[in-house]
Amino acid sequence: MITISIIGSGKLSYNLSEAFISNKELRLNEIYSRNNKNIKLFNKKIKFTNKIDSLSEADFYFILTNDDSIEEISKKIKTKNGMILHSSGTKGKDALSNHLNFGVFYPLQTFSFNKKIDFTKTPILIEGNSQKSLEKLKELCRILEAEFEEVDSKKRLHYHLAASFANNFTNHILSLTDELVNKFKLEKKFFIPIANETFKKFQSNKSKESQTGPAVRNDVKTLKKHEEILKKSNYLNLYKIITKSIKKNDL
Amino acid sequence: MITISIIGSGKLSYNLSEAFISNKELRLNEIYSRNNKNIKLFNKKIKFTNKIDSLSEADFYFILTNDDSIEEISKKIKTKNGMILHSSGTKGKDALSNHLNFGVFYPLQTFSFNKKIDFTKTPILIEGNSQKSLEKLKELCRILEAEFEEVDSKKRLHYHLAASFANNFTNHILSLTDELVNKFKLEKKFFIPIANETFKKFQSNKSKESQTGPAVRNDVKTLKKHEEILKKSNYLNLYKIITKSIKKNDL
Repeated sequence: MITISIIGSGKLSYNLSEAFISNKELRLNEIYSRNNKNIKLFNKKIKFTNKIDSLSEADFYFILTNDDSIEEISKKIKTKNGMILHSSGTKGKDALSNHLNFGVFYPLQTFSFNKKIDFTKTPILIEGNSQKSLEKLKELCRILEAEFEEVDSKKRLHYHLAASFANNFTNHILSLTDELVNKFKLEKKFFIPIANETFKKFQSNKSKESQTGPAVRNDVKTLKKHEEILKKSNYLNLYKIITKSIKKNDL
Repeated sequence: MITISIIGSGKLSYNLSEAFISNKELRLNEIYSRNNKNIKLFNKKIKFTNKIDSLSEADFYFILTNDDSIEEISKKIKTKNGMILHSSGTKGKDALSNHLNFGVFYPLQTFSFNKKIDFTKTPILIEGNSQKSLEKLKELCRILEAEFEEVDSKKRLHYHLAASFANNFTNHILSLTDELVNKFKLEKKFFIPIANETFKKFQSNKSKESQTGPAVRNDVKTLKKHEEILKKSNYLNLYKIITKSIKKNDL
């Protein structure tokens, strides 16, 4: 039985804890939470602690806090052979180098409390401080039935940047769509097929060749009509910059 | 049997022609193409013509050309009782007012030659010059088994603007993701789950509350790392503006 402790009680902690407790080969010892903020959202079976210096011995310690506290927290954890992991897309593994065994477990996904992520469908980018650490991490990924790849810190940052486009930026654009839907009292359901089609084009590597709309056609009249509607909003500048970028991309 | 002629041989023409010829209640008389540009991509059974002033009498004439030529083409079509339609998201119906029966058939979808769109899953925004025209259009939508809604020109423009966000802009961001994937030799398949999740959040109206990433956290260190990578690309300005917009949106 592989034992795990988690430090932090955010969205990733919630989603990983669900994956760990539902897996027969894993045991989640405890979760350290400094402020008990979200713990009512977690499964009732999970043991929480606010004493970081007396965590019970575990095979893995997941530091799932913000990037800036990873190093400090790593120093507080006492373990002989346990492997310390962080899950940051941008932080080097050496923030954990006060330990014998350490590495990175970075899931390429966006997490929330309102929806459980299926880790069997989540790519995990991993890094270990030694071959032994790496093998331990691979074994954990296999137990989670997750797809994984060994990736160094530089490449992980490139993945993180591209994921910011694929998720953070598209999500923002879609939430602006929702704002327009609300503002103009449009039917939200009418936008599901076109958004779905956009995603399917990405999936089949056809995004670039599938660009449609007034920007790529340089349809100045329509662009002006859109800008006229947006001129009193916060989004006129965003509209213009993305339009300009689409035009450039087409050249 | 309802008869239809199409003017124009672009992406929408291709997709509508496929829907028309596969529907037993409809007959596609002919397609007018000025330059025969894409006609080899169309079904071989379809009759093409380059004489716009001698189209055979039809129940519906679909003008599927660019917005600027709609009015001119409308004037060239000779019909007694046929209904003239355009499919522009931004053009008023009055561009067709030289006819007795006219209206707008605007499908809220993005079209391409490489993938047939299922019109039973495509919302159609319709407008007619009279109650009689509107009823004819509704009947056509029912035959296509499409969801439809009567929407005036102003509201149609609002739909078109929101669709530019939901498709044109997100598609561009996703094609930039592909550029980063190529540039840094990343695994494209690793981005499918996160893009799919982003789409599912939109579908369940959770985009705004699901915003994650360095911009919404105001994680200055990570934003700097990303900007450093992008500084020699065309996309630094776009990155900064979207980041700024995400920050604002969160306030």
